[in-house]
Amino acid sequence: MLAIAGYPLGLRFAVLDPAEDACAFQLAEALHGEYDDRTLVERLAGRADVVTYEFENVSADSSGYLAQHVPMYPSPEALTLKQDRWAEKQLFEQLEIPTAPTRAVETHTELDAAADALGFPLILKTRSYGYDGKGQARAETREELATVLDEFEGVPLIAEKCIAFKREVSIVAVRGLNGEVAFYDIAENVHHEGILRSTRNRSEDPVADTAHDYVQRLMDRLDYVGVLALELFDVDGQLLANEFAPRVHNSGHWTIEGAETSQFENHLRAILGMPLGATASVGPTAMLNCIGQLPDTAAVLALPGAHYHRYDKEPRPRRKVGHITLRAETPDKLEASVAAVEKLLD
Amino acid sequence: MLAIAGYPLGLRFAVLDPAEDACAFQLAEALHGEYDDRTLVERLAGRADVVTYEFENVSADSSGYLAQHVPMYPSPEALTLKQDRWAEKQLFEQLEIPTAPTRAVETHTELDAAADALGFPLILKTRSYGYDGKGQARAETREELATVLDEFEGVPLIAEKCIAFKREVSIVAVRGLNGEVAFYDIAENVHHEGILRSTRNRSEDPVADTAHDYVQRLMDRLDYVGVLALELFDVDGQLLANEFAPRVHNSGHWTIEGAETSQFENHLRAILGMPLGATASVGPTAMLNCIGQLPDTAAVLALPGAHYHRYDKEPRPRRKVGHITLRAETPDKLEASVAAVEKLLD
Repeated sequence: MLAIAGYPLGLRFAVLDPAEDACAFQLAEALHGEYDDRTLVERLAGRADVVTYEFENVSADSSGYLAQHVPMYPSPEALTLKQDRWAEKQLFEQLEIPTAPTRAVETHTELDAAADALGFPLILKTRSYGYDGKGQARAETREELATVLDEFEGVPLIAEKCIAFKREVSIVAVRGLNGEVAFYDIAENVHHEGILRSTRNRSEDPVADTAHDYVQRLMDRLDYVGVLALELFDVDGQLLANEFAPRVHNSGHWTIEGAETSQFENHLRAILGMPLGATASVGPTAMLNCIGQLPDTAAVLALPGAHYHRYDKEPRPRRKVGHITLRAETPDKLEASVAAVEKLLD
Repeated sequence: MLAIAGYPLGLRFAVLDPAEDACAFQLAEALHGEYDDRTLVERLAGRADVVTYEFENVSADSSGYLAQHVPMYPSPEALTLKQDRWAEKQLFEQLEIPTAPTRAVETHTELDAAADALGFPLILKTRSYGYDGKGQARAETREELATVLDEFEGVPLIAEKCIAFKREVSIVAVRGLNGEVAFYDIAENVHHEGILRSTRNRSEDPVADTAHDYVQRLMDRLDYVGVLALELFDVDGQLLANEFAPRVHNSGHWTIEGAETSQFENHLRAILGMPLGATASVGPTAMLNCIGQLPDTAAVLALPGAHYHRYDKEPRPRRKVGHITLRAETPDKLEASVAAVEKLLD
C-alpha cells in the first residue's frame, strides 16, 4: 500500500521481506531474506535514499546499521522502545499519558505481588515481539497465573490490570520532518481474539482533543517522523493508552478511500520531508479485515461504496489477507453495508 | 494508473508498449516493442485472461488477433471506428447525436465544395491517427485551405465547420459486461493548442441528462464494455459531439481522488465482468495537466488538497508528463488552488 501510494509521486521502492510471497515484491525490487540478513540490509542501504519500515520486529542491529548509513524514519529509537512493552509503558508514564496500571514481572514472586496490587483478571504480555494477540494471555485466578508464567518459559512479561472499557479507539497521526503534525479522525476499533476486525472513522469525536494531545506528546518526545498510531481505551470518556505503533497502521487503512490523503501517502510525504496532505475525512467510512480467507470478489464489489483490497497472501487461520473499505453518505447506510460485509466474512 | 487501481483487486498486468521508458513497466511484466510486433502480441494473448488498451492507435491487425484469442474490451470494432474520423462522424449521425457539420475530403475540388457548404474558418483533420492536436489544421481563407491540403500530402481528411462553443465538456461513462451503465460528473475541459489543460467536475450540470443519453446510445450501439469518454461542445446548452475515446480518458483523471470509484478501477471492474463501483463525486475537484515539464514536488504538495501524479516520462514540449488533482470543500476554494497551480505550471 505504501508502494501504490508512492508511484504517483515518482517514487521507486526496494523491499526487504522474509516472506517469499510478500505482496510488495509485485511492485518493488525484491530483497528476499531475513530482516537481519546483513548482505541484504547493506544492499538496501546502498539502494535507498530513505528507509522506513511497516513491521516492528526488525532487529535493533539491522535498524541501527541502516540508520547509520541512510536516513531512516521513524527513528530506530521509536522501534527499540516499541520492542519493549515495559519501556513503552514507562514512556507513557513520563509523558503523563494515562495507562492501565501495569508491572514488569519475571518471577512467580513478582507476579504474585502484581496480582495483589492489580487484582484479577490480569493480562500478561511478553515484553517483546508480540502482535495480533500473539504473546498475550489472560489469567482469572492465581492458579491460571502460575500456568501462564510457566507457558511463557520465564521470558520477561508485563502484567496489566484488565480494564472494562467502553470502546477501543486509535488516533493515527503524522508528523513531518519540520515538526508539522496532522491527525486523522478518531478510529473506533473492534477487536476479536486480539485481532482488529473493523474500524470506523468518527469525525468530531468527544475524545479527539485528548487523543491529539497524547499522540502529539509522544511524537514530539521521539522527534518522530512519519505516521504513528496510538491505541487507546475509552473508559467513560477517559482515555488510557494501550500501545503505540511506529508505522502505518491497520486502523488507518480506511484513509485510502475515506480521507483526503491516505496514511500511506502522508507517511511517504513525511519521511521525504514533503508538506503533509490534508487528513480530513470525506465522510462515513468503515474498514473490515478479511481474516483467514477472502470473500468472493464480485459479492464484495456488488455492495454500495465497497472497495476491496486483496493482499495476495496465502490464506491461513488468523492471518490478515485483505480488507474491505465501505463508504456511505450517512452512518445508517454505512451500517447496512457493514452488516452485509460481515455476512460475507462469516 | 490502471495497474495501480488493479493491484488491490488482486490483478496482475503485462503491458505491451513501444516506449522504452513506459511508466507501466515499473508495475507490470514489460513487453517492450511495437503494437504490431506479432511475437509480442502473441505472448500477450498467451499471458492474459483479458486484454484492454489505453491508446487508440493500435493496428487493426493486432487488435483483431488479440480479440480472436482472448477476451478483449472494448471491442476491436470500437477501436476501428475510432481510427477513422469520418466513420466516427457517420456513427454519430446514425445515432442522431448532433455534431458540427462535416464532410470527408480528399481533393481540392471536394475541399472547395466543403468550404462553400460550411464556410470559414474550417477545421481540417486527418481521418486517422491524430491526437492531442496532431493531424489538425485550421484554415481562414481559400488560400490557406489549399496550403493545408498540400501539407497533408493527399491523405484523406475531414473538414469541419468551426463552432463557436460556450465550453467544452466530456462525459466519462462506464458500461459493464451485463450492460449496466454508470456516469461520472460532467467534466468541463479547457484545451490549449489542441491539448487538454484542465478539467473540473460539474455535479448537477444542466447538460448532464443529454450527455448521458448520447453516450448511452453510443455504448449500447457498440455493445461497449469499459470506460468511454464522449467529448462535446456546449453551444448555448445544445451539445454537439466532437469525438469519443474508447478508453480511460484524461478528462476522467480527476476521478482518482474526486470520485467514489476511479475511472481506472471501474474500467477494470467492467472488463472483468464485475459489478461497477459508485461514480458519485466526493466534491469539487479539478485536474491540471503538466505539459512538457513537471513543477517542483514540494511546491505542489504544499497546496491544500493537492495530489501529484508524476508519470516518470522524459519531459519534452507538448508531452503530458504528469497531472495534479485538486480537491476543495467549495468551488471558490478550488479556484484559489487552481490559480496557485497554474502559476507553478507557467
